[in-house]
Amino acid sequence: MQPSSDLRPDAAAVSGVAEVPRLTAARSELLREITILDEYGERRSIHIPVERPLTIFVDKRELVTLMTLGVSPELLVLGYLRNQRLIAGADEVESITVDWDVAAAAVKMRRGLADLEARTARRVVTTGCGQGTVFGDVMQQLDGIRLPDAASARIRQGTLARMLETMRQQDSIHRKAGSVHGCALFRGAEMLMFIEDVGRHNAIDTIAGWMALHGVDGGDKTFYTTGRLTSEMVMKAAQLGVPIIVSRNGVTAMGHDLAERLGMTLFGRAANRHFLCYTGFDRFDSEPEPQRAAVRVVSG
Amino acid sequence: MQPSSDLRPDAAAVSGVAEVPRLTAARSELLREITILDEYGERRSIHIPVERPLTIFVDKRELVTLMTLGVSPELLVLGYLRNQRLIAGADEVESITVDWDVAAAAVKMRRGLADLEARTARRVVTTGCGQGTVFGDVMQQLDGIRLPDAASARIRQGTLARMLETMRQQDSIHRKAGSVHGCALFRGAEMLMFIEDVGRHNAIDTIAGWMALHGVDGGDKTFYTTGRLTSEMVMKAAQLGVPIIVSRNGVTAMGHDLAERLGMTLFGRAANRHFLCYTGFDRFDSEPEPQRAAVRVVSG
Repeated sequence: MQPSSDLRPDAAAVSGVAEVPRLTAARSELLREITILDEYGERRSIHIPVERPLTIFVDKRELVTLMTLGVSPELLVLGYLRNQRLIAGADEVESITVDWDVAAAAVKMRRGLADLEARTARRVVTTGCGQGTVFGDVMQQLDGIRLPDAASARIRQGTLARMLETMRQQDSIHRKAGSVHGCALFRGAEMLMFIEDVGRHNAIDTIAGWMALHGVDGGDKTFYTTGRLTSEMVMKAAQLGVPIIVSRNGVTAMGHDLAERLGMTLFGRAANRHFLCYTGFDRFDSEPEPQRAAVRVVSG
Repeated sequence: MQPSSDLRPDAAAVSGVAEVPRLTAARSELLREITILDEYGERRSIHIPVERPLTIFVDKRELVTLMTLGVSPELLVLGYLRNQRLIAGADEVESITVDWDVAAAAVKMRRGLADLEARTARRVVTTGCGQGTVFGDVMQQLDGIRLPDAASARIRQGTLARMLETMRQQDSIHRKAGSVHGCALFRGAEMLMFIEDVGRHNAIDTIAGWMALHGVDGGDKTFYTTGRLTSEMVMKAAQLGVPIIVSRNGVTAMGHDLAERLGMTLFGRAANRHFLCYTGFDRFDSEPEPQRAAVRVVSG
């Protein structure tokens, strides 16, 4: 349930970025016990996830308030800045100090952040299952994205099956308390990082922060999410350079369009040995399961 | 799949508001057919939901871009304005004109909208499963909310079971294509309105628009959602004056807190005859099911 030690990297262990930001390691309670009344008229205890506001200040200027579970708020902030294209790399950040007592993350930049107001002026409220916010015209920045070609970044059906088995066995807040989304980053069938948050955007932003901090490239990675493959999820993965996404959930038409346009491979409805490959069949080495006389889910 | 005729009200049929806004009835394709490759190595067709951007202009000033399925964009826009507290009632709006060719909704106000910039300056990116946006300090406006007391606004377990049966039988885009959220408004066991969208916030905003247009009060209503009961969903229902919420999904701690503070009754994990009552037991007339020797879901 606690983040792996990878999430709290020792500065000395971090490689790939020239200058490493100093990060606090703020902790908070992730679960709360409540009493419910069920259909049998019984009162009993369950756990629910705790969401809390975190207001980001960049060089003392208020940027935004995120609602988060708070597993790894420093990486969330770092990844948020990167995914909003407010920074290009972790080395632009001197420190991120999270203090839950005041629900604030203070970001100190090495060389300031020019034109913050101008760069955050345009609001696009995106889908998600909520109304996610993307500052600026991220959708227009497709041209800057370069993903490895299908010959060099591929996935075999057996690897996908092992990934899904790893996800099935993963200890999680979701299993204890529901109502959170999980994200993971894989290299082959090896899970490099797993994070849960109340919002699926927060989860991928936290992975982005981890990648930025460690200087990890996305080209040989696969991104797993429990959330839907909407346009902004596909875009965020693409911005991280990750060419393959696996979701336990489905896809929307814009997510599908975007993945086709970017040459990404999307899998949805992926659990156990079941999946639908939506796009990018050319990256996928199919190793068909034997046919069974079973009713299959057909929703997208 | 198409919205019911209730969603396209004849102006003459609308009561409860002094002046009725003129609304277009813009239509768009809701589903797209795509080819997938499955775990058996088979290619076949499925349907996925179509999301599209809709930029709202208020008296020619750009406000925000929503990503929506587009079932009932005019009501979405009306409800968005109301839930963001930019308008108090539908009579402030002269017309809403949606044109999908330019992906725009033009809102014409009867008497203008003062201080638009100031009122939308503060950004709170909320959870949802995305990062929902709430302009202004909606969370601070709890004091303005008055819900009927537990003696006058109640729900019986049998009524809840009939609601859930209605939802189970409801024809839906979700059943055809997945990846959308549904919301419904009930009076007792009677469904008054049902709407689906790619985002659960859009769905409740559309219901808010329908209520505003028809001058419908929330006090004797129950709100159903397939989405999680996060703080902002609870807040939106409370703003509509609806004291009881039923979700197929779970709850977060802030949603739970807020509902307790407001005296609302929340049900989660509600499907078929199963549910968990999280808060507001005092509004609920329990009619316990006979105990069965079954494994029950315990997640929150």
